[in-house]
Amino acid sequence: MLARAQPSVSSGLPPALAAALEGLLGRRFTTSAADREHHGRGESYHAGLAPDAVCYAGTTEEVAAIVRLCAVHRTPIVPFGAGTSLEGHVTAVRGGVCIDLSRMNAVLSVRPEDLDATVQAGVTRQQLNSDLRDLGLFFPIDPGGESTIGGMAATRASGTNAVRYGTMRENVVSLTAVTAEGEIIRTTRRARKSSAGYDLTRLLVGSEGTLAIITEVTVRLYGIPEAISAAVCSFPAVSNAVDLVVAVIQSGIPVARVELLDNTTVRAVNLYSKLALNEAPTLFFEFHGSQAGVCEQAETVEALAADFGALGFIAAADADSRNRLWKARHDTHYAVQALRPNAKLWSTDVCVPISALAPCIAQTQADIADASFPISMVGHVGDGNFHLGLLIDPSDPRELAEAAAINDRLVRRALELDGTCTGEHGIGSGKIKFMRLEHGPAVEMMRKVKQALDPLGILNPGKVLPED
Amino acid sequence: MLARAQPSVSSGLPPALAAALEGLLGRRFTTSAADREHHGRGESYHAGLAPDAVCYAGTTEEVAAIVRLCAVHRTPIVPFGAGTSLEGHVTAVRGGVCIDLSRMNAVLSVRPEDLDATVQAGVTRQQLNSDLRDLGLFFPIDPGGESTIGGMAATRASGTNAVRYGTMRENVVSLTAVTAEGEIIRTTRRARKSSAGYDLTRLLVGSEGTLAIITEVTVRLYGIPEAISAAVCSFPAVSNAVDLVVAVIQSGIPVARVELLDNTTVRAVNLYSKLALNEAPTLFFEFHGSQAGVCEQAETVEALAADFGALGFIAAADADSRNRLWKARHDTHYAVQALRPNAKLWSTDVCVPISALAPCIAQTQADIADASFPISMVGHVGDGNFHLGLLIDPSDPRELAEAAAINDRLVRRALELDGTCTGEHGIGSGKIKFMRLEHGPAVEMMRKVKQALDPLGILNPGKVLPED
Repeated sequence: MLARAQPSVSSGLPPALAAALEGLLGRRFTTSAADREHHGRGESYHAGLAPDAVCYAGTTEEVAAIVRLCAVHRTPIVPFGAGTSLEGHVTAVRGGVCIDLSRMNAVLSVRPEDLDATVQAGVTRQQLNSDLRDLGLFFPIDPGGESTIGGMAATRASGTNAVRYGTMRENVVSLTAVTAEGEIIRTTRRARKSSAGYDLTRLLVGSEGTLAIITEVTVRLYGIPEAISAAVCSFPAVSNAVDLVVAVIQSGIPVARVELLDNTTVRAVNLYSKLALNEAPTLFFEFHGSQAGVCEQAETVEALAADFGALGFIAAADADSRNRLWKARHDTHYAVQALRPNAKLWSTDVCVPISALAPCIAQTQADIADASFPISMVGHVGDGNFHLGLLIDPSDPRELAEAAAINDRLVRRALELDGTCTGEHGIGSGKIKFMRLEHGPAVEMMRKVKQALDPLGILNPGKVLPED
Repeated sequence: MLARAQPSVSSGLPPALAAALEGLLGRRFTTSAADREHHGRGESYHAGLAPDAVCYAGTTEEVAAIVRLCAVHRTPIVPFGAGTSLEGHVTAVRGGVCIDLSRMNAVLSVRPEDLDATVQAGVTRQQLNSDLRDLGLFFPIDPGGESTIGGMAATRASGTNAVRYGTMRENVVSLTAVTAEGEIIRTTRRARKSSAGYDLTRLLVGSEGTLAIITEVTVRLYGIPEAISAAVCSFPAVSNAVDLVVAVIQSGIPVARVELLDNTTVRAVNLYSKLALNEAPTLFFEFHGSQAGVCEQAETVEALAADFGALGFIAAADADSRNRLWKARHDTHYAVQALRPNAKLWSTDVCVPISALAPCIAQTQADIADASFPISMVGHVGDGNFHLGLLIDPSDPRELAEAAAINDRLVRRALELDGTCTGEHGIGSGKIKFMRLEHGPAVEMMRKVKQALDPLGILNPGKVLPED
């Protein structure tokens, strides 16, 4: 009782821990309500839960020191990047300490000859790409928002370029991370490939801060293509668009991006971005290569598109019209949001084998038609991944329940088609309930790994794995 | 004492286990000396150690049953595919049961629309590619030898196509595996990407049978390119060749293969394959794409090659000259072997960041020049990976010691350059001594994973991880 009654730096943390953290970090340790509230939630519909304190870490060594202190007190630790999470990853479900890594935002080294760069976890992809531009290089992974590269690694993020360049799984070379004991490790060397032992890099990519805390990331870079061109093309039905994409990928055309927008999304984009696209299921393409190469790719896709009932194929070869198109694609979040200004966007995230994409979407369209709120759809169709945007009033329990039921049916449909409940957003706390359905007894293997690497259960508890 | 004295089916196995395995498998359980000897070694210089018995498994369920029986008796289990291992992976260092998976050789399904296939672990890459040819598809990973796809997954293998298509790390979609408890799991679904939990697929790829036994593999497939062309080009020095490759990759030319052969290897190839290549450091290129695309790639590389002092650039656009060239590359093993017919080839396998490749090779050339036996060099230079072929008499302790010293210096050199001791062959028992040097405290994380997933230590003991 004494500890509670005492005026302590943090109401929830053991006073000795709070004092030690303050000793370590000074004013970069805080229990202010505003800081705690800001760090208790991502960008999604999930209710937030604030941590007891926030630590703004400056170095890997500081992260290690914080972890060692928290381990002594068995206090939960939640790593935090930019707070762009969509599945409640940063919710402090058991309180504890949030480690904010956003001040660890140095690009440590860029090696053009090796096509890689090492950055601190808090560097955003925009910041890295801005640093790289003059070198003629870029980092292709582009989830929405100003995500940090550490956060992107932790959730195995991807985006519109994955069909050509892969996801964080393929583009992280090596990680520096802090273990649950506060030890600093490097997961592997910087060679492009290695067969030396267990793939700790890939084990930590997608582990959402539950196995270790990622503090530095070495990523692969790519030369900015000599030429880029884009095209847009609409179809009588979603199935035609999907069938074209399957044909394009099978014929080995190295399309850099291919994005599907449904009628609702096209309408939203037309309104928001002042475009005049045909209000029909639409594909946005982007081609990377040499001048001749991108022309050839666009011509081949245009010829194929005619076979799949395309209603028109508009090339956007010049940078202005291409940028306008892709800016519109990147603004779909805001465009869709504008359809119901006070709503919150619940973004679903199933991913299925590409052969199952058309049936999965077709079966989902009845749900879209019957919903009591607007629902948009965009798809990274080259990967079999698509998002419904459910525009709900999160304060209305009926809408929340209706959205949850739509998501639940969608996930079960995807799993029946050998797909996954999340292509790129992660499990967080929001999708734990699907883990057993998706993975069966493999969940026990995951649990053993978690238990082995975090026996005290202090690393982002209540995330990824079901607890019973 | 009683058990030892009794005539038992296996001299080394507990009689109850031997009886149970024989009951399960009938004549597919054997303790014959020939079978045991055949299964106790791979293709390398490593001394063999025979298992106490060999089980020819027919199904995943049988593998699970074998593991459950062995777990009861705490008997070691060594998985075996084609026996093409180069680092003592299949050596039964503690006896026990070898599970031969080569009879599990069914291609279970090929899905052209998803560009993937599911095969049993014992299917070889040649068998799969032969099945795929009529569909216009191929599986690109091509280590030397008739390796099984299960073995290739277990060692995270690659080969000459990795620069374009990646390694087994990038090309395994999903695995079916048997855990140390004899439970059957599937590591993930068949979607191209997923953020649903820990990446068990990548955890098992490269784990060399020490965390689970891989019984089925779903791999990515690719369309056979519309056009393929090849070229060969020699240089005054290895460094010119390497610098060209760096420039080619940086300019984003999607070269499918680029292989370096040193003077000794070119000489061997000329003799063995009746070619008349210039006896100088030489690059073999292969280009995949459309007709126009491969022409453009070859022309761009030819223009670049001139800047790097190429002594000639010979295109081999027609299938005959291309196949002759690549057949010669694939036969380098035999060609080099023929330089010293009774020798055994010790193949080193370091991989470094590509910027470190030229210095790493340059520093290695003194060792090559000073050696008392012939040494050849071939490199998957686009990946920074190269192999020395040390032609030694393995019965001569001085030659073995000299080879070990050369390999040791080479590995330390690669590690100093932020590289790895093995780019594609694996650790097995042969490179355990370098694990701490390469991974530092990350070895403890690997050890915790091993302990969690195989607490009895029965899965391929004595491999991958140091024991002290």
